[in-house]
Amino acid sequence: MLELAPWRSDLSRALHRNRSLVYARYAQLATVQANHRPANRTVVFRGFLEDSNTLKFVTDRRSNKVEQIAENPWGALCWYFPKTREQFRISGELAVITALEKDAALLRLRETAWLALSEGARTQFAWPDPGQPKNRSEVASQEPTDFSISLETFCLLLLAPQTVDHLELREQPHCRCSYTLKADDTWQQQALNP
Amino acid sequence: MLELAPWRSDLSRALHRNRSLVYARYAQLATVQANHRPANRTVVFRGFLEDSNTLKFVTDRRSNKVEQIAENPWGALCWYFPKTREQFRISGELAVITALEKDAALLRLRETAWLALSEGARTQFAWPDPGQPKNRSEVASQEPTDFSISLETFCLLLLAPQTVDHLELREQPHCRCSYTLKADDTWQQQALNP
Repeated sequence: MLELAPWRSDLSRALHRNRSLVYARYAQLATVQANHRPANRTVVFRGFLEDSNTLKFVTDRRSNKVEQIAENPWGALCWYFPKTREQFRISGELAVITALEKDAALLRLRETAWLALSEGARTQFAWPDPGQPKNRSEVASQEPTDFSISLETFCLLLLAPQTVDHLELREQPHCRCSYTLKADDTWQQQALNP
Repeated sequence: MLELAPWRSDLSRALHRNRSLVYARYAQLATVQANHRPANRTVVFRGFLEDSNTLKFVTDRRSNKVEQIAENPWGALCWYFPKTREQFRISGELAVITALEKDAALLRLRETAWLALSEGARTQFAWPDPGQPKNRSEVASQEPTDFSISLETFCLLLLAPQTVDHLELREQPHCRCSYTLKADDTWQQQALNP
């Protein structure tokens, strides 16, 4: 059993105190494109991978970020909690778990993540190619799809944090603390100027 | 007088419909670090530059993003509006206007942006070096500071959009539209699969 990172309790508290806002589980994930320009989009936090500090999201295999992550796995998540006025900046390596994943344990985790999705969220993985020009004659498949097993387009997206920056804006001056994962898998904590 | 980009009316509508939420003016800005990893942080929208489609923000000259932008000016803003459930992804070139700016018109804009700040926001530019380890003996300057003229650490940050991606989640399937700035300074609009 892994010891929880010291920032986990701060993040759990923020999630709890903001639980009345459904969008407190939304955060913005930045990646780098092949042309060295940043990309940024909203993702939905799907909880932590069991016995780890790794954050779970889901994505469509056809989305641009999957290609970007294959070339450059670094991700920067920015997560603002409106009710408690605090921000977590979580950086680390991203991994995309597709239907072709070789690791049986990861493949099971992908299937579990699929089952945890709402019917509405599952349906999106049967929609036409995301980000492609809309063809007015093309509509989402009308055939009855069996949503009890995951669609091939569905991917589990994992972020393994290496640095976390926690900023609290409620006080003047603001409170800021950074956490850095060291080579021995322990976390170094440092109070910073806001 | 520049013609407003076609996405401006959508963004104005979103700002208006979400105006009861102070944090609807917060968005996440991604840049690329010298080590080719992304960085991402919350910024406060300060309106548009007059007669242009350029977005205004402010920043501290000592913050990491100023150095990042000097090496790679590309930025990706992700802006989620909770009330209307829509997202704008705005990408383009960033420019930092410091106290040493040579262009007199830009320098005046920087001064105007300073005057538009609240007293609390101005004070932050007199705080110790942001992001540096906190020195418990070091406190924000206690000397009375003249906040009627801008502090040297204060910068105006400009984002000149080149692509905008607007996603609306209220409907199933979602609506998505992209806008791309062409060489002749007109905007090309395209409906996309969500």
